[in-house]
Amino acid sequence: MQRKDYLQNPVEHMKITAPLTVDQLMRQFSGSGSFGAGRLAAACDVYEKMLRDKECTVFLALSGAVIPAGLKVLVSDLIRRRLIDVIVCTGASMVHDAIEAVGGRHYRSSWLVDDHELYKYHLFRIYDILVAEEDYIRLDYQLAELYSKIAEARKGEPLSSREFSWELGKYLSDPQSILRSAYEMDVPIFMPAVRDSEFGFIHWLHSSQQNRKNSLVVDAFKEVPEICDICNQSPRNGMIVIGGGVPRNTVQSAALASKKGMDYAVVITMDRPETGGLSGSTLKETISWGKVKDEADKVMVIGEATMVFPLMTASVMERLGAEFRRQPPLLLEGAST
Amino acid sequence: MQRKDYLQNPVEHMKITAPLTVDQLMRQFSGSGSFGAGRLAAACDVYEKMLRDKECTVFLALSGAVIPAGLKVLVSDLIRRRLIDVIVCTGASMVHDAIEAVGGRHYRSSWLVDDHELYKYHLFRIYDILVAEEDYIRLDYQLAELYSKIAEARKGEPLSSREFSWELGKYLSDPQSILRSAYEMDVPIFMPAVRDSEFGFIHWLHSSQQNRKNSLVVDAFKEVPEICDICNQSPRNGMIVIGGGVPRNTVQSAALASKKGMDYAVVITMDRPETGGLSGSTLKETISWGKVKDEADKVMVIGEATMVFPLMTASVMERLGAEFRRQPPLLLEGAST
Amino acid sequence: MQRKDYLQNPVEHMKITAPLTVDQLMRQFSGSGSFGAGRLAAACDVYEKMLRDKECTVFLALSGAVIPAGLKVLVSDLIRRRLIDVIVCTGASMVHDAIEAVGGRHYRSSWLVDDHELYKYHLFRIYDILVAEEDYIRLDYQLAELYSKIAEARKGEPLSSREFSWELGKYLSDPQSILRSAYEMDVPIFMPAVRDSEFGFIHWLHSSQQNRKNSLVVDAFKEVPEICDICNQSPRNGMIVIGGGVPRNTVQSAALASKKGMDYAVVITMDRPETGGLSGSTLKETISWGKVKDEADKVMVIGEATMVFPLMTASVMERLGAEFRRQPPLLLEGAST
Amino acid sequence: MQRKDYLQNPVEHMKITAPLTVDQLMRQFSGSGSFGAGRLAAACDVYEKMLRDKECTVFLALSGAVIPAGLKVLVSDLIRRRLIDVIVCTGASMVHDAIEAVGGRHYRSSWLVDDHELYKYHLFRIYDILVAEEDYIRLDYQLAELYSKIAEARKGEPLSSREFSWELGKYLSDPQSILRSAYEMDVPIFMPAVRDSEFGFIHWLHSSQQNRKNSLVVDAFKEVPEICDICNQSPRNGMIVIGGGVPRNTVQSAALASKKGMDYAVVITMDRPETGGLSGSTLKETISWGKVKDEADKVMVIGEATMVFPLMTASVMERLGAEFRRQPPLLLEGAST
Repeated sequence: MQRKDYLQNPVEHMKITAPLTVDQLMRQFSGSGSFGAGRLAAACDVYEKMLRDKECTVFLALSGAVIPAGLKVLVSDLIRRRLIDVIVCTGASMVHDAIEAVGGRHYRSSWLVDDHELYKYHLFRIYDILVAEEDYIRLDYQLAELYSKIAEARKGEPLSSREFSWELGKYLSDPQSILRSAYEMDVPIFMPAVRDSEFGFIHWLHSSQQNRKNSLVVDAFKEVPEICDICNQSPRNGMIVIGGGVPRNTVQSAALASKKGMDYAVVITMDRPETGGLSGSTLKETISWGKVKDEADKVMVIGEATMVFPLMTASVMERLGAEFRRQPPLLLEGAST
Repeated sequence: MQRKDYLQNPVEHMKITAPLTVDQLMRQFSGSGSFGAGRLAAACDVYEKMLRDKECTVFLALSGAVIPAGLKVLVSDLIRRRLIDVIVCTGASMVHDAIEAVGGRHYRSSWLVDDHELYKYHLFRIYDILVAEEDYIRLDYQLAELYSKIAEARKGEPLSSREFSWELGKYLSDPQSILRSAYEMDVPIFMPAVRDSEFGFIHWLHSSQQNRKNSLVVDAFKEVPEICDICNQSPRNGMIVIGGGVPRNTVQSAALASKKGMDYAVVITMDRPETGGLSGSTLKETISWGKVKDEADKVMVIGEATMVFPLMTASVMERLGAEFRRQPPLLLEGAST
Repeated sequence: MQRKDYLQNPVEHMKITAPLTVDQLMRQFSGSGSFGAGRLAAACDVYEKMLRDKECTVFLALSGAVIPAGLKVLVSDLIRRRLIDVIVCTGASMVHDAIEAVGGRHYRSSWLVDDHELYKYHLFRIYDILVAEEDYIRLDYQLAELYSKIAEARKGEPLSSREFSWELGKYLSDPQSILRSAYEMDVPIFMPAVRDSEFGFIHWLHSSQQNRKNSLVVDAFKEVPEICDICNQSPRNGMIVIGGGVPRNTVQSAALASKKGMDYAVVITMDRPETGGLSGSTLKETISWGKVKDEADKVMVIGEATMVFPLMTASVMERLGAEFRRQPPLLLEGAST
Repeated sequence: MQRKDYLQNPVEHMKITAPLTVDQLMRQFSGSGSFGAGRLAAACDVYEKMLRDKECTVFLALSGAVIPAGLKVLVSDLIRRRLIDVIVCTGASMVHDAIEAVGGRHYRSSWLVDDHELYKYHLFRIYDILVAEEDYIRLDYQLAELYSKIAEARKGEPLSSREFSWELGKYLSDPQSILRSAYEMDVPIFMPAVRDSEFGFIHWLHSSQQNRKNSLVVDAFKEVPEICDICNQSPRNGMIVIGGGVPRNTVQSAALASKKGMDYAVVITMDRPETGGLSGSTLKETISWGKVKDEADKVMVIGEATMVFPLMTASVMERLGAEFRRQPPLLLEGAST
């Protein structure tokens, strides 16, 4: 590079007037450095491109407790407008969703409360969010019943975690539920570690009270071709990662195994790369594997997701218009049904 | 506490429609958990309270390279509307400001460039921001001349870093400059580590070419009573901290030394408390010292400042109205002049 | 508390002479603050207590890429001396182990290499560690053959991930392999997200070439009672967590579901609590759930595991003596076989 | 690079036997990945090289509260053996040292105590370390008296912060004190933000009770040529950075201003680069400025300093032998006296 090539893009200082819409602020962010604001502005651009690309399947990899913290309705709205086509998440996220769908609630409290007192009160803490054991128990009873019905209908035929998610969505009637919304919209939800959640423990309670032969079976590997086929059949693929962990790895591996490589990628995380963990690994690193293409539109936002993701979606929705709805890529339909 | 006391504040899930103004989004954030969005919403509320409190002096503690990254105009606008009353910052921040005020620029690049090539090109890197050595040199020449004038006018009488800042502001004519804006608006700028910047190195070059007796002298301790008097004379005090380090410590220590304790506090940082460093220390910890009052409105936002601070200011400006201007607390005038 | 109660434990400054054994240094660390050294010293004490408690089952929750980075032999040695009784890990960790067991290697490189060049060379990067695609392929062939044998022997009967791990261990002959060591020593290895790894993708390739009916089936939920029974039948339980994610959650949930609560806990992580993610959540938070007992010996070390965990083990091995071997708690035997 | 060039250095798995000396463990670390252990092993090598280089001046940049947390004696021992030649630190670090030198103590407590109760008890908290206000007051009285004596002796001639440090060291008699040890060993201590500490506040109290003309004056800029001359006259320079902030910037800037560039560099920090702050900036970035040479031996250890720094020193002392003492580079003597 020549010296002058480095000096092409002067920083444009933000000018904050009021009122600004979210997208107007993101436009101000786009001329700044990549410390945080510049990355967030770039993430809005990447998400917008994914959505305007009619042949792109949009994956959301979701970890952490962002659903109980306030993102449930945002995610279900994105599903209903098909601004997300596939979800890969922890079992816990969908447990949180299901708890609210059957009438439970999450409560804001403080991270400095007396945890032993909470223990005595049967209140569980997730940072500053509380949930009552009774809300878990209400869910447990309903799940046990549902498991019996599924097992009976399936006659021992194992489900994938995606099929299991849709069974849950079919059962739950709350229109704000992510599981319900995904079921209604044919959006697959994969839970590669579904066993590591209340869904797994209820299965244990349920099957120990009955003849195990009649219990529901989730085949751990059955979902692998399902998600790989989606990647494979879609002309282009994009991912938005919240957090990291197994969901991020699963989405990236699907892109690798299907020999496609992501065309668009946004990662929102607070993790750092130096520990060698997947969650903090850079998008640059994914190129070596073929998980994300070298030429992909991609950016990593170092920030907390309940702050960053709504900013991104509010900005992009503003660009696309309130009425914007997407149709999923044609090839996907076959895969998800 | 009773069990039911913990269950008073159910999470209100965000509902993102478009377009949303920044403040409308912050209102959506206020019902969520304190992972990030909830803290940011709380920070907007605290800043609004500071500004509506006519007897509160608002301190901005500024570290890191946020000025070259895009916050220069935002900060100078805040000064001109007196939404900030006092600044405490590193010398480097004001060097960045001065470089642009005398015609230099900062450029957006990448954090993955070849640093040895930059070295050969005399381009300096701050994460993804570049600045050319020639822009430093242009500043150097002007500073050397200015130092002579100040030294002559002062006749050996030492300056505080605050007086030095105002001398810089008097000299610079760029209305977007923070130093200039502060000078025009009687906003004191303290640089407790002023020596650790180009201001210090120019002094060395300048004084080594001349009879040292005639050189400008900055008295390191002279500013201590100046900032303590401001805290002391103000009925109430509030601080906004970007980053941490010496600026945060200086502001907090002024609140301690003047036996006032901050009444309002917002800290924006990515540092964590476990290393024992000041930058990541919690606001809870400051209570033990009397730096921040136990009953103060206070919140720490774990996030990057070029993203968080403009969000906060856009939201609060929207609440206060485009025409909102503050008058500094009366008692401050005597202190700063 | 009285004022004097706070002033009982003066900091004892470290005195570094040479040579010091690792444990001698840890003893020096024990008088210091809890920024890092004090926490590490406490972690040594907790692990020592776990090991000296003849009725304690020791769980290791393992995430991140610490096995290819250098901890493989350390972990297999711990298994062979029964200083670890149960492992819960990602599928990827055991893939890394298996790759080396069938003759592959991991290589040290740099995190600043050209990832597109690596892609063209079929070299995959994990931070600064490289692994060649050919080593994956060698494993793939062997796994495909093994899967057929297992499927045939099982006649459609699903395996738990623990049974699957032991099948792998039975097959691999490398005595330094973790999978092999665990198989020989009756140490269960649970992989709750086993599908999210090469083990899952090989299954896809394998089963797509054959009659699916004859393929190996891993029942996602089958391991739940297995791990809960271990917790339940053991008089006391302790956990060492490296990283976090699904492995940490699985171990903690087993303690919760079996209504035991961990009696000892060491968490080694770089994650922070404010995002609400499980990996960075505090041990204090686990008390509210009953995952860890309020009165448990517990400590969280904020540090990177390839540095922290060997320090801990070297220190504790020194205390226990080179010949120290543990017998697992009696009740465990029934559970793990 | 050829493909085979990437595959030259297979990971050597650590083998932990007992007892191991610290250096034996570091040797085990040297074959592992650069997640943490590999970086620490590299840092030991770099520090060893600095010390074996008879023409290298070793700078220690010190921030954070590591002195009260347990590193005081370690640092003063390093000074007495001249394993450190120059210190640059915050004022607070030397206040902590001075408090203990006049009979005060720091106490280990918890980061979860009631800070309002501490406030009422006049106990100040630094993460889990407590210090009593009375220990500050004892120091204050002695400093006020000392300031008068210095002012009288100096007759209005301003001091640099380095001269001020030596005046403190001359006054304090505790042989374990860092200030005392540095004074005895002619090791310069620079405090570029000396005003931001109890040293500054005492100055205010002291001078407000007296005729200001007779008060001690610290010239903020006077130290600039002092530290630059040391860099300039030393054939080679090395730095060890604990934390970051102003001390790191000051050392790096001295290397830049003297047109030398560091030949060796170890940075120990938990900060990350993406915020653009100096503390987390990479050593790669410093190359663009000429602060550290492209060809320098350099490594950044992502870890907490009270854990990492003693490990490094114990390992290196073991390599050099218990009797190893260094002579400072000859040229330094003139500069520091």
